[in-house]
Amino acid sequence: MSLIVQKYGGTSVGTVDRIKAVAKRIIEYKAQGHDLVVVVSAMSGETNRLIELASQITDQPPARECDVLVSTGEQVTIALLSMALEKYGQPARSYTGTQVHILTDDAHTKARIKQIEDQKIHQDLKAGRVVVVAGFQGVDEHGNITTLGRGGSDTSAVALAAALKADECQIFTDVDGVYTTDPRVVPEARRLNRITFEEMLEMASLGSKVLQIRAVEFAGKYNVPLRVLSSFEEGGEGTLITYEESDVEQPIISGIAFNRDEAKLTVTGVPDHPGIAYQILGSIADSNLEVDMIVQNVGQDDTTDFTFTVNRNDYAKAMGLLETTAKELGARNVEGDDKIVKVSIVGVGMRSHAGIASSMFETLAKEGINIQMISTSEIKISVVVDEKYLELAVRALHEKFGLEQE
Amino acid sequence: MSLIVQKYGGTSVGTVDRIKAVAKRIIEYKAQGHDLVVVVSAMSGETNRLIELASQITDQPPARECDVLVSTGEQVTIALLSMALEKYGQPARSYTGTQVHILTDDAHTKARIKQIEDQKIHQDLKAGRVVVVAGFQGVDEHGNITTLGRGGSDTSAVALAAALKADECQIFTDVDGVYTTDPRVVPEARRLNRITFEEMLEMASLGSKVLQIRAVEFAGKYNVPLRVLSSFEEGGEGTLITYEESDVEQPIISGIAFNRDEAKLTVTGVPDHPGIAYQILGSIADSNLEVDMIVQNVGQDDTTDFTFTVNRNDYAKAMGLLETTAKELGARNVEGDDKIVKVSIVGVGMRSHAGIASSMFETLAKEGINIQMISTSEIKISVVVDEKYLELAVRALHEKFGLEQE
Repeated sequence: MSLIVQKYGGTSVGTVDRIKAVAKRIIEYKAQGHDLVVVVSAMSGETNRLIELASQITDQPPARECDVLVSTGEQVTIALLSMALEKYGQPARSYTGTQVHILTDDAHTKARIKQIEDQKIHQDLKAGRVVVVAGFQGVDEHGNITTLGRGGSDTSAVALAAALKADECQIFTDVDGVYTTDPRVVPEARRLNRITFEEMLEMASLGSKVLQIRAVEFAGKYNVPLRVLSSFEEGGEGTLITYEESDVEQPIISGIAFNRDEAKLTVTGVPDHPGIAYQILGSIADSNLEVDMIVQNVGQDDTTDFTFTVNRNDYAKAMGLLETTAKELGARNVEGDDKIVKVSIVGVGMRSHAGIASSMFETLAKEGINIQMISTSEIKISVVVDEKYLELAVRALHEKFGLEQE
Repeated sequence: MSLIVQKYGGTSVGTVDRIKAVAKRIIEYKAQGHDLVVVVSAMSGETNRLIELASQITDQPPARECDVLVSTGEQVTIALLSMALEKYGQPARSYTGTQVHILTDDAHTKARIKQIEDQKIHQDLKAGRVVVVAGFQGVDEHGNITTLGRGGSDTSAVALAAALKADECQIFTDVDGVYTTDPRVVPEARRLNRITFEEMLEMASLGSKVLQIRAVEFAGKYNVPLRVLSSFEEGGEGTLITYEESDVEQPIISGIAFNRDEAKLTVTGVPDHPGIAYQILGSIADSNLEVDMIVQNVGQDDTTDFTFTVNRNDYAKAMGLLETTAKELGARNVEGDDKIVKVSIVGVGMRSHAGIASSMFETLAKEGINIQMISTSEIKISVVVDEKYLELAVRALHEKFGLEQE
């Protein structure tokens, strides 16, 4: 018998019928002898409905009251799911974040979990109940309701699993696992049985939006085995997210991630002296624009060229800021391109295998794809290419690294 | 400067625009120098929406989970109202029943308030904030969410006023006060400036559904001055509900109440021995049917006649039960009538004035109205008459007792 924390997202509990289906699935797991703690999100659409109400009142709702408002979404779901479980004969009990004291800091709308009271939950489990906990929400030390930010239910589940020392944390979502790449781009894409936390972090941040990054980080930090499963298909094994150490033999490359939402900006002929990067990116960061890749190249005559990418939606704003900065710095030129994409190969195995980068570049060259930027980390290599090459690049790399085979 | 607790019901906060209007009204009161604690209900329709969701899952939702579910309704309103207040420049803070620790017993869906923590609220008031509290809900000693039953927001407001030792508790509703009778029946009906708690209790239970009975009882017990006001008309004084002692001179009759929803049942020729009333009403009470008036008359030959009234919706069910009981008791006959109404005159003044009853009966006789049942208490006299006489009886009595004049 093991203790499992399961998390069902908004789509999985989006209607009364789906809530009933989730209840039946939970009962099946329970029948296998497991203790179950279930974390749920708000029914899909509900959070948006609440935010829309607030927006009819004010453009700038106080963050504290936003949390009071939107936290009702998950509270409705825990009650309905508990009712469904009881109806099917499974004793259950629901808890809000406040009730199981999911203690967070006081950063409303983006709070971080500090501690969870596990006593009540263990008592209920001992009594044979399924415990249903509202995801996404907590309470600060003064009793104010807080939320973890959108998608925070994943983090709630992992934090609960860590606090309860659960054997596994299962995230039910609308995909049946993590794939070597997006199956809509490469039909041969294969579900991975396992992937390391580090790879998962790289995959998630690169656009494979299966799990919240914070949840993955949290799981890694507290050593919680995490599994991604489909809430719509029964019997699947999903993808287990593991620690590198537990894997005897790693594949070199685990997957190909990509991101279509990028735009790049370049400033050329900048005087090359210390602090220049800060001067260029300072105004961008001050405006809360998120910068993704940053590349600096040696230029000529004591100047340098500096390129970075931002979300495509922020392109115009970033360009405006950069032109002002460039003038102040006496730079030669500012240019940009919002028709680019980022393609990355990810794999912990590449640490110990030389020549992966050159393999990647060779593959792209053979297909006539020009590489505009390169950025590397220990377990990934990312390139920026013209957006028209996205599918071609991903398919060629998927084949080159043999990802369609186990 | 005084401390006022205000309560706005579901209709008053039924839309975003009405919530904004309530916020503006609160700010006007605040500008007059008052400290304000505001209790709100769920937006009208919201509680029904939630109950409908539950009913799609099960006919018998666990009471604990019902409370978790429906308490979200008021939580949404407190957040939205606080946002509106802040938008208009008035610092505000919302609290759920759990957050201000409105401690109740554990009778889910019909809990009773035992205690309220006033410290947080006093701190906020001192800091110049308006405090917005979710009505209808509380928390038991184990941290479970409870609700007070439908309409319980009135009780929340009165309980808060008592705990905070407020100078007045103002209930904003869709009428502008308590009237001498229903103005739809008697156009000359007049708003009462004041009415005693006892009269209010009789008026409320007799069908003038302005305030929850429990709230009135609570206010009387804790000496909370209670005022009923219109949330849609500005500047009204409403009706102040007072203690008898504070009134130098009482009018003899304060108002005429009536109830159209009654049906009467009579069993005749019942052996007249102790315990007979219990035997007749036992099965009715066991089936959770509420009995209103009960009259027992002396019959002939050691038998008695026994009549009582029930809600018209329960008539058929009550008749079925009574026929079974009558057979067991060897009664002569069972008869009934669901085309009757109850008309009552209410006034603490009648205690010290003889002849009120005969005045009432004389008035009805002059109009040719036959009285079918009579029941009296210290401050009210109720009669049951054929429903076709309702308007005639109420108008005649209203005029007879001069209620159209101050």
